[in-house]
Amino acid sequence: MIGRKLAEKLAQDGMLGGSKVERLSLLDVIEPALPAGFTGIVHRAAIDLAKPGVATSLVQSRPDVIFHLAAIVSGEAEVDLEKGYRVNFDGTRQLLDAVRIAGKDGDWCPRFVFASSSAVFGGDLPAVIGDDYALTPQTSYGTQKAMCELMLADYARRGLVRGIGLRLPTICVRPGKPNRAASGFFSGIIREPLAGQEALLPVGRDVRHWMASPRSAVGFLLHAATLDPSRLGKRPNLTMPGLSVTVAEQIAALERVAGPKAVALIRSEHDPLIDRIVRGWAQAFDPARALGLGFHAETRFDEIIEVYVEDEMGGRLP
Amino acid sequence: MIGRKLAEKLAQDGMLGGSKVERLSLLDVIEPALPAGFTGIVHRAAIDLAKPGVATSLVQSRPDVIFHLAAIVSGEAEVDLEKGYRVNFDGTRQLLDAVRIAGKDGDWCPRFVFASSSAVFGGDLPAVIGDDYALTPQTSYGTQKAMCELMLADYARRGLVRGIGLRLPTICVRPGKPNRAASGFFSGIIREPLAGQEALLPVGRDVRHWMASPRSAVGFLLHAATLDPSRLGKRPNLTMPGLSVTVAEQIAALERVAGPKAVALIRSEHDPLIDRIVRGWAQAFDPARALGLGFHAETRFDEIIEVYVEDEMGGRLP
Repeated sequence: MIGRKLAEKLAQDGMLGGSKVERLSLLDVIEPALPAGFTGIVHRAAIDLAKPGVATSLVQSRPDVIFHLAAIVSGEAEVDLEKGYRVNFDGTRQLLDAVRIAGKDGDWCPRFVFASSSAVFGGDLPAVIGDDYALTPQTSYGTQKAMCELMLADYARRGLVRGIGLRLPTICVRPGKPNRAASGFFSGIIREPLAGQEALLPVGRDVRHWMASPRSAVGFLLHAATLDPSRLGKRPNLTMPGLSVTVAEQIAALERVAGPKAVALIRSEHDPLIDRIVRGWAQAFDPARALGLGFHAETRFDEIIEVYVEDEMGGRLP
Repeated sequence: MIGRKLAEKLAQDGMLGGSKVERLSLLDVIEPALPAGFTGIVHRAAIDLAKPGVATSLVQSRPDVIFHLAAIVSGEAEVDLEKGYRVNFDGTRQLLDAVRIAGKDGDWCPRFVFASSSAVFGGDLPAVIGDDYALTPQTSYGTQKAMCELMLADYARRGLVRGIGLRLPTICVRPGKPNRAASGFFSGIIREPLAGQEALLPVGRDVRHWMASPRSAVGFLLHAATLDPSRLGKRPNLTMPGLSVTVAEQIAALERVAGPKAVALIRSEHDPLIDRIVRGWAQAFDPARALGLGFHAETRFDEIIEVYVEDEMGGRLP
């Protein structure tokens, strides 16, 4: 979803960091959609990045910027251990190694923007997590992202890529249909009522979590691609800004934006498992480094809803 | 060196955590020496753990405890990137996966004691590093160790191994000949004068570093193998205790133990490169968790010298 929105934005802007975007290569396990309005060359393909040789052929076009967002989600990585390590870790490693080998004559060193996740943090966490806090993932997905962060940092330190890793917050409001991800309800309790449909709330309203809009996530990726790498110092992985809100605060914002009729469509149906999983996640960060480097996200949940209404509902409430 | 001492200690004790040691499998890239005085079965072999299939055949004997110390050192991992990732990371991964697959029926879940390193920390560090501090390695070796820690923690969380990772301090006094490791002089300025030989000191005497004796390192590994894994909670990787000393304090201890004649054999020959590398390393830790779990190391540098004199010089100063 973020990859699609990023491609659309790049196609629409036609520029990145003051340079014309001449060519877009869009790669995923299923062939990505053609973004509207782009006048340059578009290459699209369905690929399996973890398959030996695939990454090598991908880098032959020597792109200036690589955005690497591909991953299987946390639930799937937990159920299928081998697939998780293969796609989320080996895929990234193959891509980093393909860049290393293709660039070994020193004439090519692309920017490599890696989408990590706040799931690299887990377990017994402080209420607010600072930039120096240990990565203690409690899922295989978070583990794989953390391993990729380390390898990216090592390759960046060695001058093999101009790497930057971004720990994305939970993205809210996700467009589309409800899914069964444990985090799905954070979007569902906004998206469904805005569409006049009922939404289930499986957790207590005191649950606090860290979120940003899809538009902010695309903004992070674009900003990362244009940032001077020397400003990252010895730590190219950054916790992205976000908004720490409780479910109660989400619902209060929904009421301000869409009225009590929308809020009435939220039905509490407690799910002890989801409640427990979600309470194990990070609640808030102090992303001082990212803020100092010019990354920014929403500061009120009302804005996050407004972004959804603008970008997904044509700006019109029903 | 630590592996050899660990094997000798296990052979000598004949017991581990109240159980008789019936079988020792000693595996390294060159065939390990036969430890003296062991009455059980010893299997020794020269192996390449990273080679597909090797780990699978190793675990067929279903050992109760696996000590995994194998690694190429930091200098070599820095010079040969591919070899470093292959040996230090892939070797560990192959071993973890071999255990996972062999134990998948739930009837075997060995203890897996992994030797990590304080090299997982680097860059701009606080004067004293706590247990919650981020892993920010500034070498490929440290990166590979940190990646292994993450994978070990994930496999332990999933119940696939009873894993524990130990971040070992710099080991001092290392027996044997001088080597060209950047950290070599920390041992050399003690070992060579005790043998009546000159030692070069390439750094300023104000340099501070984190050390423990080889005897302490063996003690950490044995204690880790007998610790109740449930006491590790969600974080099975631990910074081991050590002693934070300056070079000046090392030299003062040498004078107390062996007199001014020994100290007179230390010759300062400044090496700006080594000085710079060493000043980038961690100076001190607050290993509260490990101390609480019963790990302990030397508390005065005099003890570290005395351990060397006892274990390597038959207890006699020349």
